[in-house]
Amino acid sequence: MDRTPERFSEFGFIEGLRRGICPAHPMVETGIGDDCAVLRLSDERCLLLTTDMLIDRVHFRLGTLTPFQLGWKALAVNLSDIAAMGGRPVSWLLAIGLTPNLPDVFLEELKRGLFACARRYGADLVGGDTVIARTDLCLSLTVIGEGDQRRLLRRGGAREGNVIFLGRPTGDSAAGLRVVLDDPPGLSAEVQKMLRRAHLEPEPQLELGRLLAEEDLSRAAIDVSDGLLQDLWHICEESHVGAEIDESAVPLSAPLVAFALATGANALDLALAGGEDYALLFCVPPENAERCRRLCRERLAIEVREIGRVRREQGLWLRGSGGLRPVAPRGYDAFREGLREERPKG
Amino acid sequence: MDRTPERFSEFGFIEGLRRGICPAHPMVETGIGDDCAVLRLSDERCLLLTTDMLIDRVHFRLGTLTPFQLGWKALAVNLSDIAAMGGRPVSWLLAIGLTPNLPDVFLEELKRGLFACARRYGADLVGGDTVIARTDLCLSLTVIGEGDQRRLLRRGGAREGNVIFLGRPTGDSAAGLRVVLDDPPGLSAEVQKMLRRAHLEPEPQLELGRLLAEEDLSRAAIDVSDGLLQDLWHICEESHVGAEIDESAVPLSAPLVAFALATGANALDLALAGGEDYALLFCVPPENAERCRRLCRERLAIEVREIGRVRREQGLWLRGSGGLRPVAPRGYDAFREGLREERPKG
Repeated sequence: MDRTPERFSEFGFIEGLRRGICPAHPMVETGIGDDCAVLRLSDERCLLLTTDMLIDRVHFRLGTLTPFQLGWKALAVNLSDIAAMGGRPVSWLLAIGLTPNLPDVFLEELKRGLFACARRYGADLVGGDTVIARTDLCLSLTVIGEGDQRRLLRRGGAREGNVIFLGRPTGDSAAGLRVVLDDPPGLSAEVQKMLRRAHLEPEPQLELGRLLAEEDLSRAAIDVSDGLLQDLWHICEESHVGAEIDESAVPLSAPLVAFALATGANALDLALAGGEDYALLFCVPPENAERCRRLCRERLAIEVREIGRVRREQGLWLRGSGGLRPVAPRGYDAFREGLREERPKG
Repeated sequence: MDRTPERFSEFGFIEGLRRGICPAHPMVETGIGDDCAVLRLSDERCLLLTTDMLIDRVHFRLGTLTPFQLGWKALAVNLSDIAAMGGRPVSWLLAIGLTPNLPDVFLEELKRGLFACARRYGADLVGGDTVIARTDLCLSLTVIGEGDQRRLLRRGGAREGNVIFLGRPTGDSAAGLRVVLDDPPGLSAEVQKMLRRAHLEPEPQLELGRLLAEEDLSRAAIDVSDGLLQDLWHICEESHVGAEIDESAVPLSAPLVAFALATGANALDLALAGGEDYALLFCVPPENAERCRRLCRERLAIEVREIGRVRREQGLWLRGSGGLRPVAPRGYDAFREGLREERPKG
């Protein structure tokens, strides 16, 4: 699922709507600008709301993923926004525009994927709208979650000195997209399968988000959808801080390393700028860091990785073998363009 | 905005999803099957959720309505679902697929229509997603309302002997669609304007829904979107009752009567089966009927009209000059087909 081009995301309709309006209803606590909108229910409880639209031949291509995978991913990426706020899923609504030519078996598999994901993460379908679309299948999902009003993970919650953690390695999804589109030679069936799956059946880190909120380990998180550096920059912007990443600390999965060896791709570039990983990226006060690692290991059996630090100056820096170098806030766009242009060499 | 064809609405995807699933999350009180989904917040409070998708050349035609009207109507029809449950609007989310060729002025006017409606009825935009669509503009709105858990108006709340009320005359929207599409001769500019407006800038009866709920006047309502008889049948089905309508009591607006005179159309048919009126149709215990009429007059300055009674036997009946005659539960479909085929004679 490709990302929205710049002119729409940056100068787009929703951003335009945002300017000049301010929430007026007493329940509306956070409007546009975080992973989810927040509706305050009481001093403790709140609801989280997020919505996404996916259109065939814009965000996905029916030939490159199964209808099961489309259904799974459509719901999973919205649930990931709930995870990024530290919330629990409650329910979802589905508006869908179906082209007349879709066979019944396609619809059955699409349903199966949606419901497999819904059951896995405990979200109930509560409403929807089914309409006809002329040319392109179109899905719009709205997911509702609940959270603790006082312990939400927000993009604006990072502070100088916070340790930056990553919930699991990134880059596999971008490599998986290459496998789906180009089928590069030299990869074992097992590696291919794992990379495809990372791209087509992503798993939102809901348990991790919940642990971070419930144990008050973090106040700032985002899910990596645009790419690690780009999403880290979103946190920096909203928190008015900067960040430094230690290249050698960025985790690389075994399948990603195998992919890089076979294709000549740069594994670190994919991990830093690939996108659609839906790993959680979160900031932890240094005094919580050890406890955070331990609780993640003991309760969730996952190894979260410390990859850098929050700095006072706004900006992004990479620490590599040649020392510390700044990455211009938009520098990773060129990075991503490079990724797009680059063809597998294997 | 045309309605969804039968095979999608009746055997459609959402209905299919509904079968074999049951709400599991403790907050989910009503899932699919009413005007809105209900999430229980406490014994008293609940949230109402509704979603709709509108696609160019399926639900509307850009040439026949202004972008302002498109924005207004897209939000208004969702707010009408909140009205039909007796709720108050809180917030809304907008997912929108924009075709690349839309001029800036179009987007500005679309925004203006959306926000005029949002301000008028007090709903805050809290989130959204802007994407590119290849061929057809596509909007998907989700509206969140709040209500009193104990006093919701539900499709399943009608009881034998209830008086059936209509919140305002119906049929104007269907006549307005004819004006928009065919521009029939013989109509004054004023009549044309009022009918167009009924079709293109409908007003959800939110104050009426709220009064009915707060004053405990009614427990069953629906907003007329498919047509008066068809929506009445939705109430009958969910309440396991029947209904009888007195033809002579069905209110006809002055512009509708003028339209019928000029075009040869049957005003009563339009009022009974036209659709997209977004008037509230509601059922009131007989002991509340007089108080209901009075409160609507005193507090809202509107005249609600008694048009029939709820019966024990399932079915629909029309009482006309020739006595009482049954209308087969699907009889009004033929009715509606007739309306579609019929051309203005004037």
